Amino acid sequence: MAAGKDLIVGVDMGGTSLRALVVDGKNKILAVEKTPTRRDKKTGELISDIAALVEDAVDSARRKWPHVRAVSFGAPGAVDPERGIVHRAPNLGWTNVALGPRLRELLGVPILVENDVNVGVMGEYALGAAKGAQEVVGVFVGTGIGGGIISRGKLYEGGRGAAGEVGHIVIQVDGPKCGCGKRGCAEAVASRTAMEREVRAALKAGRKSVIPKIMKKRHKNRMTSSVIQAALKKKDPLMREVVKHAQYYLGILVANIVNTLDPQVVVIGGGIAERLQEDYVGPIRKTAYKYFLQSRDAERVKIVPGVLGD
Amino acid sequence: MAAGKDLIVGVDMGGTSLRALVVDGKNKILAVEKTPTRRDKKTGELISDIAALVEDAVDSARRKWPHVRAVSFGAPGAVDPERGIVHRAPNLGWTNVALGPRLRELLGVPILVENDVNVGVMGEYALGAAKGAQEVVGVFVGTGIGGGIISRGKLYEGGRGAAGEVGHIVIQVDGPKCGCGKRGCAEAVASRTAMEREVRAALKAGRKSVIPKIMKKRHKNRMTSSVIQAALKKKDPLMREVVKHAQYYLGILVANIVNTLDPQVVVIGGGIAERLQEDYVGPIRKTAYKYFLQSRDAERVKIVPGVLGD
Repeated sequence: MAAGKDLIVGVDMGGTSLRALVVDGKNKILAVEKTPTRRDKKTGELISDIAALVEDAVDSARRKWPHVRAVSFGAPGAVDPERGIVHRAPNLGWTNVALGPRLRELLGVPILVENDVNVGVMGEYALGAAKGAQEVVGVFVGTGIGGGIISRGKLYEGGRGAAGEVGHIVIQVDGPKCGCGKRGCAEAVASRTAMEREVRAALKAGRKSVIPKIMKKRHKNRMTSSVIQAALKKKDPLMREVVKHAQYYLGILVANIVNTLDPQVVVIGGGIAERLQEDYVGPIRKTAYKYFLQSRDAERVKIVPGVLGD
Repeated sequence: MAAGKDLIVGVDMGGTSLRALVVDGKNKILAVEKTPTRRDKKTGELISDIAALVEDAVDSARRKWPHVRAVSFGAPGAVDPERGIVHRAPNLGWTNVALGPRLRELLGVPILVENDVNVGVMGEYALGAAKGAQEVVGVFVGTGIGGGIISRGKLYEGGRGAAGEVGHIVIQVDGPKCGCGKRGCAEAVASRTAMEREVRAALKAGRKSVIPKIMKKRHKNRMTSSVIQAALKKKDPLMREVVKHAQYYLGILVANIVNTLDPQVVVIGGGIAERLQEDYVGPIRKTAYKYFLQSRDAERVKIVPGVLGD
């Protein structure tokens, strides 16, 4: 690489906001910029917004454009990293957008397009909870369950770019139906969506709980992680039970991953983990350790909450 | 490496026989030697047998001892590859045997001690069903289910040397009890042991089948893969049903592995796969493809029977 070309700009594209992070060759964060995601705009305008955001972030870092080595883009959906295409990003309404080539044209530097979960695990690897480890798996629990694998210090994407879909590891053959159409995936029993389904079924069956009141008060009609946190603070028995179930299944999922890959660190990320930290991860870790085949040195496998946020 | 030091000797230590294979730098097999495993002898004598077998194999290859670069040892159980220790090999009655250091003393060349399943997958990678691929997972179905992972052309062992234990991926939470003490592992529902358990339960419940007659005729009191093959040849409905169940679970196991690692090739090895080949692997592949999250290019993931034998 040319002397001085030491900057990487990472862009996260959430449904609410676009964020750009400038990092130097020593993984030091130099600047963070954000702007709202204008979902009502055309694809081309949104791509121009991204290009402008990246340039602003480099300015904020008080560095010059020729110092930028590459821009790494975390897209919320299925991507083709080789061709830089976002196949599907439902929360942006995108289908087959040639994001990489179009940004390359605007910015003139190499563009890496990755799934955002992969970017998340790279972040925890470079700067966060898994700093220093070479073998890392990230498990991100939200409305779904995503995952990303770092092996020998590099993102591991598999032969078709489909690796790390740990949310679709079947842990309960013929179990509840998953969003993917199959049954018994980890996502179908342990995601926030699965927890909400369990809560609603219990409420419908007449179970008493503070959850509906909290959701109403916060003007939320979904069981977000802030609702989960608030209900747990009030020691709501239904929420405690539902979280406990999800933690048990996640513990088994983590053990499945460890029995396959034996990483040094498993990072549990996503909204619930961010809010509840050890209260969420502790019981997951306990179940996981029980299910490790090789129990010797179990505690050498760190199972930790993510620290970097969404 | 010194000029001419191009030979690797691979040793497989089965409960019945010890086998040594001499391979040159181009992965060409030069010689194979075998000798019975004297399980009644002391550990030291068995180790001397191994050393003698290795020297015989090099003689048979018409090559000289200084041409040997290393001896790679496949031990049937838990090993510490770094220190060359076999922690537990139940079918040899071994506990914490310093196999690497002791053979090093006898033979004077580097000794690699690996789990035999890892050696099996390396074999399929170097010479067999997965030749040419860089990302390979081997799933070996026998009395248990073992696994091995090749990533970027190298054996992947994980942080504690515990990677690849795919037989202990839980696919049925709270399912049948596994030999490892947990419930619902793939091994507990899809190994030869699980199939035998299912057959015996059906027979006990009064189900008619040719299986007991076949076992008696062959003087076998276990349901070996030759018994399975013979019963299928006679189109025994019970055996067909039990094999179909196991194939379904194995298909889900393979999909779990692919959704995690997305390898180029999954090799299904072990006695049943060797005997039945495509008849065994075909239905496994069909279920697996159904359970891939990324169905695009599913057929790019090869799911094939092993070709190298035990």
